[in-house]
Amino acid sequence: ELRRRRQELRSRMELLIMETQAEVCRALAALDPGAAFSVDTWERKEGGGGVSCVLQDGEVFEKAGVNVSVVFGQLSEEAARQMRSRGKTLKAAEDGKLPFCAMGVSSVIHPKNPHVPTMHFNYRYFEIEEADGTKQWWFGGGTDLTPTYLNEEDAVHFHKTLKEACDKHDLKLYPKYKKWCDDYFYIKHRGERRGIGGIFFDDVDSPSKEEVFQFVQSCAKAVVPCYIPIVKKHCHDSFTPEEKLWQQLRRGRYVEFNLVYDRGTKFGLLTPGSRIESILMSLPLTARWEYMNIPPESSREAEILEVLRNPKDWVH
Amino acid sequence: ELRRRRQELRSRMELLIMETQAEVCRALAALDPGAAFSVDTWERKEGGGGVSCVLQDGEVFEKAGVNVSVVFGQLSEEAARQMRSRGKTLKAAEDGKLPFCAMGVSSVIHPKNPHVPTMHFNYRYFEIEEADGTKQWWFGGGTDLTPTYLNEEDAVHFHKTLKEACDKHDLKLYPKYKKWCDDYFYIKHRGERRGIGGIFFDDVDSPSKEEVFQFVQSCAKAVVPCYIPIVKKHCHDSFTPEEKLWQQLRRGRYVEFNLVYDRGTKFGLLTPGSRIESILMSLPLTARWEYMNIPPESSREAEILEVLRNPKDWVH
Repeated sequence: ELRRRRQELRSRMELLIMETQAEVCRALAALDPGAAFSVDTWERKEGGGGVSCVLQDGEVFEKAGVNVSVVFGQLSEEAARQMRSRGKTLKAAEDGKLPFCAMGVSSVIHPKNPHVPTMHFNYRYFEIEEADGTKQWWFGGGTDLTPTYLNEEDAVHFHKTLKEACDKHDLKLYPKYKKWCDDYFYIKHRGERRGIGGIFFDDVDSPSKEEVFQFVQSCAKAVVPCYIPIVKKHCHDSFTPEEKLWQQLRRGRYVEFNLVYDRGTKFGLLTPGSRIESILMSLPLTARWEYMNIPPESSREAEILEVLRNPKDWVH
Repeated sequence: ELRRRRQELRSRMELLIMETQAEVCRALAALDPGAAFSVDTWERKEGGGGVSCVLQDGEVFEKAGVNVSVVFGQLSEEAARQMRSRGKTLKAAEDGKLPFCAMGVSSVIHPKNPHVPTMHFNYRYFEIEEADGTKQWWFGGGTDLTPTYLNEEDAVHFHKTLKEACDKHDLKLYPKYKKWCDDYFYIKHRGERRGIGGIFFDDVDSPSKEEVFQFVQSCAKAVVPCYIPIVKKHCHDSFTPEEKLWQQLRRGRYVEFNLVYDRGTKFGLLTPGSRIESILMSLPLTARWEYMNIPPESSREAEILEVLRNPKDWVH
């Protein structure tokens, strides 16, 4: 009975990640009807597989990817070390083996227009079987926004929508996961956050599997309403070449975060047989690095930097 | 007397890195006379400083940086961990402190024309004082080439010049350091090397400090003759937009290597108070990531990929 219920939750999570992928892809396709969506189904020889949907060089989107994957097998030593380093106790069998199963939906959407922010979300479920048969499980995920220029109204709408999704479950969740997001998406060597945040959580295994799943479901359902209205509002805004240049420099920071710090990217790069093209589809189509580009005081470029250095509360 | 001699070698190494910087900058400026070279002197509040010379958006060079630095202070825990993980025994004092001194010259040159390869070199000297007063020291460095398209003649010239520099000291060095270079500049998640190699070595502390210094000096003196003739030969070659695009995709791989794997970049990002702009000046001005870009068989793009997957011997 316990096994049946566990399997059942795994199936419901699988269903949720696939529904989320379909829902987001439909919304993107509706906004950029001329763009081709490539859909690739792939298998991982060590166990599992996934479906990657990618739109590239469209009218509205520069690059947008939505990926689902369900992978299982043995945790690589390096991946286990990384998990232990963030406080997990994982008792491996004598041969060092740690069977795991990871499933999730993840997406990064880079629009063309510098007045439309980049959005990222990811919801995932993880299970590890220890040597004595104990199963550890946890959920992780989040949704966050990376604008090139600050628009307070958009920031408030985005955070408010996420807060509403959280509040249905526990009023403590939004403040906690909002702060976690600001802390997590931190480009340490720059002293800047990647964007204006949202929510982020990991290793969540209480109060119960059912309750955490319900919460994750609410978050996943909030993706389209928190982001798509912002795209619609700004995708026809006019912009200057200077604004496009600033966007490209911010894209460079996005690459820095994803390659140097992001836990999901690292886990992917360390997992043998993982599909690199799906992991790195989060990178923008183009990016730029200039030596010593420092925006003038009181410019709109300095304004967003200020918020990236000192995160604000957008809803109370 | 021992102390005097040790200090003397440190001074000679300092002189060598500064001379190398000047020599390379002169050669670059001569090829791109219209471009502005920005020269920044900086100090590190924890100890030391450096000089960064950067040329950006010139006629011949997209971005070229030559950096010297001499930094000292206490090794960060994370940096010590990284060194131990590659086999170093470092006995820290009870308070965990490990005084260190690192000096070096490093440079990455990204030309505009896709027929002119990117070149990187770095020569450095490291000292750590252990709790019992023992001083560990070692030299590291290398010079390597990253072409967008393969040109066998250039590859042979580049490797031959490096081999000649090595052979003056020990015939075993070139084969050993050529292989080390192929192994080091490996983008594991792509199964590709960053470029067509050159030489690379680290942790070299024998046969003697004097002899290793002499060897490093020969390598540093070989930088201009191994690279500048290649720039001169191709900087006026005509190229197509497709060739420029392929260059941008290769630039993306360059970023992947530097941010995910490069030891020097990681050490820099982990060292408190290090100058980020100087560390990340190795990144290209622009880069590109396309989902699933796979060059057609027998194309010139497939030709370079083949060499990046299976490194060749260019001189015997």
